[in-house]
Amino acid sequence: VLDAQQVLVDVRPAGEVVPGLERDMVLHAGPPIDWDRLTPSVRAAAVGAMMHEGLADDDAGAERAALRGDVRFEPCHHHQTVGPMAGMTTYSMPVLIVENRATGNRAYSILNEGLGRVLRYGGTGPDVLERLDWMRRVLGPALGQALRGMPDGIDLRALIAQALHMGDECHNRNRAASALLIKAIAPRIAALPLDAADRQRILEFAAGNEHFFLNVGMAACKAAMDAAHGVPNSTLVTVMARNGTDFGIRVSGLGDQWFTGPSQTPRGLYFAGHNADDASPDMGDSAITETAGIGGFAMAAAPAIVQFVGGVPQDAIIHSRRMYEITIGESEAYTLPILNFRGTPTGVDIRLVVQTGILPQINTGIASKRAGVGQIGAGLVNPPIDCFVKAVSAMTAPGSVPKTATKTTSR
Amino acid sequence: VLDAQQVLVDVRPAGEVVPGLERDMVLHAGPPIDWDRLTPSVRAAAVGAMMHEGLADDDAGAERAALRGDVRFEPCHHHQTVGPMAGMTTYSMPVLIVENRATGNRAYSILNEGLGRVLRYGGTGPDVLERLDWMRRVLGPALGQALRGMPDGIDLRALIAQALHMGDECHNRNRAASALLIKAIAPRIAALPLDAADRQRILEFAAGNEHFFLNVGMAACKAAMDAAHGVPNSTLVTVMARNGTDFGIRVSGLGDQWFTGPSQTPRGLYFAGHNADDASPDMGDSAITETAGIGGFAMAAAPAIVQFVGGVPQDAIIHSRRMYEITIGESEAYTLPILNFRGTPTGVDIRLVVQTGILPQINTGIASKRAGVGQIGAGLVNPPIDCFVKAVSAMTAPGSVPKTATKTTSR
Repeated sequence: VLDAQQVLVDVRPAGEVVPGLERDMVLHAGPPIDWDRLTPSVRAAAVGAMMHEGLADDDAGAERAALRGDVRFEPCHHHQTVGPMAGMTTYSMPVLIVENRATGNRAYSILNEGLGRVLRYGGTGPDVLERLDWMRRVLGPALGQALRGMPDGIDLRALIAQALHMGDECHNRNRAASALLIKAIAPRIAALPLDAADRQRILEFAAGNEHFFLNVGMAACKAAMDAAHGVPNSTLVTVMARNGTDFGIRVSGLGDQWFTGPSQTPRGLYFAGHNADDASPDMGDSAITETAGIGGFAMAAAPAIVQFVGGVPQDAIIHSRRMYEITIGESEAYTLPILNFRGTPTGVDIRLVVQTGILPQINTGIASKRAGVGQIGAGLVNPPIDCFVKAVSAMTAPGSVPKTATKTTSR
Repeated sequence: VLDAQQVLVDVRPAGEVVPGLERDMVLHAGPPIDWDRLTPSVRAAAVGAMMHEGLADDDAGAERAALRGDVRFEPCHHHQTVGPMAGMTTYSMPVLIVENRATGNRAYSILNEGLGRVLRYGGTGPDVLERLDWMRRVLGPALGQALRGMPDGIDLRALIAQALHMGDECHNRNRAASALLIKAIAPRIAALPLDAADRQRILEFAAGNEHFFLNVGMAACKAAMDAAHGVPNSTLVTVMARNGTDFGIRVSGLGDQWFTGPSQTPRGLYFAGHNADDASPDMGDSAITETAGIGGFAMAAAPAIVQFVGGVPQDAIIHSRRMYEITIGESEAYTLPILNFRGTPTGVDIRLVVQTGILPQINTGIASKRAGVGQIGAGLVNPPIDCFVKAVSAMTAPGSVPKTATKTTSR
């Protein structure tokens, strides 16, 4: 994990590159879940994804297809992929390709749609589908062409390290990382043989979204954690993810198993006209950032984030400090200036969580619990302790640990 | 000063827009100075500027022209203009135009050349002149065209405020501000009817320079301070600037006068192969940032800067805290997250400096004292106390205060 060398190398249609992804599949965030347990906003996102992919014409058609099994729902994490919030990923969507050059494995993530009413928050409507279509037709191919023109790709280890010195924690605050990514890719976009209006729109779209980098960073974290999955007897958490109903973790030495508990509702600040009564339980694969030692674990790098998630700057420092109690390493690449450049707390150990009762600190966006609305705020959330207790039990129960842990999602 | 609303509106050849600039003039940083008192690196920059402008063919010709008075040297500050380091500004150079919409005045600055061997650090050679020529032919016109396409310009008050939440102090650390500026202008550059290679080179040039924003920020600070110059009896410092030999200040209620003392040599970190013995005394108009309450005064926003200028992150906080002792206001726009979003200390009062003995804290680049070398490090420096003592004397001496202070550089 500490030695990961993640590089953004390409953007391609998911169906061309994501292992095991087929035309009738919809990948979602978090652990596996049945259709009838989806929250309204995740269900709305699933319907939108099926419509985008031509797997359904409307809500009723999507429902029928889902219940008949004409469409298969599988976790992104079963396909070396991560998706923010609802995380819906389908065959024709463009995905970012991140290569871990230290180990050779790759990880994938869809492109970030921006703020406001967007699919990942359960936003629906013609505008949402039109944007997804433009991303598939124009944005994805352009980013891919630009990246393929850069022989070294974009060094994400260096970019994230720099962003942490620029007030980002790279989960809920991606201003610096997004600007650095745009700075890196804009010269190539500017030279693409497209209409001038397309070049302009691509860079305006990127500039208009402070979370343009989020999905890139998530894929970088996934590429780091996958390389550490499947180490016999290792108690390292390699996945933390939520589907809006369940929070699930995977553990390096415990193979394919998910250990789940109820997803919690974040505490935070709400946009005008919304409040905690509107909030959906936590969702998304974006907690891969905390799993890899940034996000909530690196909040001390991002004191200004408290204006977005609540609290005072000192809280941000306290959150980071507390995470050293449950992690087994400190990053050499990612450092926290205000803690005198101490490496970020990295690598949650299920034993330390259970022993101390300290839960991983996650920064997160807050979705409405109603379908079609979108993001309503941002805040802090923790996993349920159940996941960690169950995982420790599985690790210690005789016979329950696979002799050789299977590596399904790595390399 | 606190209400300034600075907007980047255009880039034009200096001769078209800078008040009073004529073809035979070379503007320089700091207070007025005679040719024979120039340090070798500032003199080298002056020669390079004359060659760029066609006012001399070589070093000897430049020397003759200067001594005969064929070329006039005047401070940038006498022309609503600021220039970093040597600050050489000539008739055909493109300048940034910053408008203070609260008061209607404008300020100007040349474009930043980047790092390494560059004119402003006294770097000389064909590469330096070729770059300046490309900036005049391609970069300046392109930036101007892009900016004129943005009806609202670029809101620099908002941009600087954001950069201070992203680890910049906007004098010696401009990573975030530069990336934000690129993000704002890249869509328009990408749409310009130029060769694809030119569009790419413009954005690569910008992306390759972490101080791309510096000159923009300086012009923004100049636009704020000029609006406050000429208030009768005001003891507010409106200019701090150095020409490599003298450090000079101007005071709002003391009209055109400069109050000077010897420029000090910065203490800091040196690039490999250089040390304090190579260092030139401090130079440049860039201390306009500290004059306006950012730069060294906002170091608490930029703990990571200590890797560049020396010290530990706690020092950065201490420097900002100390500046509240000698300033008469706190910014409403620019806030320091780690000090619980306290406004930056803004507006040096000459009386407070003399009463407390606390000198303004300036972050600065360090030039070689030898001609032709360029930047050799970065560090911290203070003005000589003499400037402030002389200014207080001028303010208190009977008859020495103009009844109505003349406003030469404002509006």
